[in-house]
Amino acid sequence: MKSIDFECSIRVKPGKENVIEVIDQRFLPFRTGLFEIRNEEDAAFAIREMVVRGAPLIGVTAAFGMYLAVRNCGKESYMEALDRAETLLNSTRPTAINLFYATRRMKAAVEPGLEGDKVSGILFREAAALMEEEIEACRKIGVHGLVLIKEVFRKNGGKTVQVLTHCNAGWLACVKWGTATAPIYMAHQQGIPLHVWVDETRPRNQGARLTAYELGMAGIPHTVIPDNAGGHLMQHGLVDLVITGSDRTTANGDVANKIGTYLKALAAYDNRIPFYVALPVSSIDRELEEGVQNIPVEERSSDEVHFTEGWTGSEIGRVRVTPFEIRAANYGFDVTPARLVTRLITERGICPATREGISSLFTPEGA
Amino acid sequence: MKSIDFECSIRVKPGKENVIEVIDQRFLPFRTGLFEIRNEEDAAFAIREMVVRGAPLIGVTAAFGMYLAVRNCGKESYMEALDRAETLLNSTRPTAINLFYATRRMKAAVEPGLEGDKVSGILFREAAALMEEEIEACRKIGVHGLVLIKEVFRKNGGKTVQVLTHCNAGWLACVKWGTATAPIYMAHQQGIPLHVWVDETRPRNQGARLTAYELGMAGIPHTVIPDNAGGHLMQHGLVDLVITGSDRTTANGDVANKIGTYLKALAAYDNRIPFYVALPVSSIDRELEEGVQNIPVEERSSDEVHFTEGWTGSEIGRVRVTPFEIRAANYGFDVTPARLVTRLITERGICPATREGISSLFTPEGA
Repeated sequence: MKSIDFECSIRVKPGKENVIEVIDQRFLPFRTGLFEIRNEEDAAFAIREMVVRGAPLIGVTAAFGMYLAVRNCGKESYMEALDRAETLLNSTRPTAINLFYATRRMKAAVEPGLEGDKVSGILFREAAALMEEEIEACRKIGVHGLVLIKEVFRKNGGKTVQVLTHCNAGWLACVKWGTATAPIYMAHQQGIPLHVWVDETRPRNQGARLTAYELGMAGIPHTVIPDNAGGHLMQHGLVDLVITGSDRTTANGDVANKIGTYLKALAAYDNRIPFYVALPVSSIDRELEEGVQNIPVEERSSDEVHFTEGWTGSEIGRVRVTPFEIRAANYGFDVTPARLVTRLITERGICPATREGISSLFTPEGA
Repeated sequence: MKSIDFECSIRVKPGKENVIEVIDQRFLPFRTGLFEIRNEEDAAFAIREMVVRGAPLIGVTAAFGMYLAVRNCGKESYMEALDRAETLLNSTRPTAINLFYATRRMKAAVEPGLEGDKVSGILFREAAALMEEEIEACRKIGVHGLVLIKEVFRKNGGKTVQVLTHCNAGWLACVKWGTATAPIYMAHQQGIPLHVWVDETRPRNQGARLTAYELGMAGIPHTVIPDNAGGHLMQHGLVDLVITGSDRTTANGDVANKIGTYLKALAAYDNRIPFYVALPVSSIDRELEEGVQNIPVEERSSDEVHFTEGWTGSEIGRVRVTPFEIRAANYGFDVTPARLVTRLITERGICPATREGISSLFTPEGA
């Protein structure tokens, strides 16, 4: 078994529970460093300024922010401190569902009337529990997804397994393992030879910047490609399977994920290549039927299209790639219809991207 | 009829036949300027350094380079000058088929034993004839393609026609009109309201830089989008038709074009949106059957993926978007299977992307 020297995106050193360390993702892959969170203000800054990003990591960071607010609350009552921190943290990324879940959960962990000292400990353990749950969900996604990679490896006669992924659904977006990357890391640990095609993922280049960084850290062979290239690679037998993450999946299996995912799913379908989506069941929105029409798609700043950020040779800078004074549109994600999704990989197991498949995850046996 | 103030990418001022002016495309859209070609060395530089690009424009530039070589040949015989210029020019972009065609044609236009003075005039007229032929082919592509846009306009009940295009198949790649853009320019001239979604076309961003520039010059509303966005737009009824160019189309209608074209064709097909390819018949390779397996795809420098070029605020510069010391792959184009192509638009008319459709272009009635 190969050891992977990959880190967690967030950590607490034993005995130093007054500081939460996160990997500062703003300058990756060009500058690596830790960002120290010592209070709820730091946590809010980290989320707002995208020191941390990715739904699970945002949630865990907010949870620790709630804990630190109470730890440092001084003469303020801990309920006041929690209220104040909740308002602050919830305002940082208004569409991040995990954020609201985390702050609500932290408040629910304590009751009025407890001794102040105890509360701080309860909150620390609650935040740590949330973190462990996120890690465990990703680990199980990896265990289930590994079966699919092994299958390809066997069918290929032991040749290198070629995986294509889009955006960053790795440990930088979660805490450890990642979602789409978990099966890849586990296969690598088991000695299965892999090569990953990494979509650069314009406009923010999370693939080129973050996924490539992660895979490099883990020593997994990979090649960055423009988002345009996947179809060509699939036509020429250079992709064995596609794995992506998901921001939100509907009850019938439609998958909202980073813009461009749908195009890769179409190409995979056209070339009879399995297209897998790895996600925790918490990303499944069972209230929502049919994603293409019903999932609202965030429009982000057009500056992300006009400008490309990167390393100038001496610092992080940006260049404008479009003519001045023209319009650009920047849709955050698209929806891949369930008919194009081969299977969903969750911590509760693998299922078809169908209403029945998804329901089975929530039955007593499935759960 | 609206007037479009668009230029030709190459021109000769009457009475100043010693200088060929081309638009310097290296710094577009941030710096506009003319580059003067006074001899075959200048022409070779312009082609090699991509002052000019696009198959038809490269051919025309080379033709004028052959003419200038003879015009300035001094004591050298004109046949020697032509041989020398041909060798020089053919070495600039070794895969540009129009280049070889142009230099061969220029040589064939003269015979040994003519008077030196006459030869220069013959060669000028031959180069000018080639230029006019390229313009006329594009103009006719526009006339034929306009019918398709009018049809959409009528079906839409007079609403704005939404076109999506990929890369630059405009007048900057040709001489005037362009191929994919010719129907768009003509529709605009006729007062049909249009909006064009411009794929930025990573890695070289010819859409964001050149097509957006052209459309801006012509006053045609347009929006630059990441290459990832097209599928989402099509799912939401925001695209009425797709038009792209083609580098090479096989006898059965498979279309080689800029990398990523295939993904857009898949999305158009999935959403029942017409996908048109505009091309001069000279791009049809009737010797080649089945493009996906048989058209060799150029692999270009990985630096085009690692780096993005643009305007730093004071100059043209570039930023690195990938981690250091990792691999990137850069395939120049992909092949869209004929089954995904609704129609081919050529100067000889519109035809299905089938063997029979293409043959009909070359029958006496078709020609």
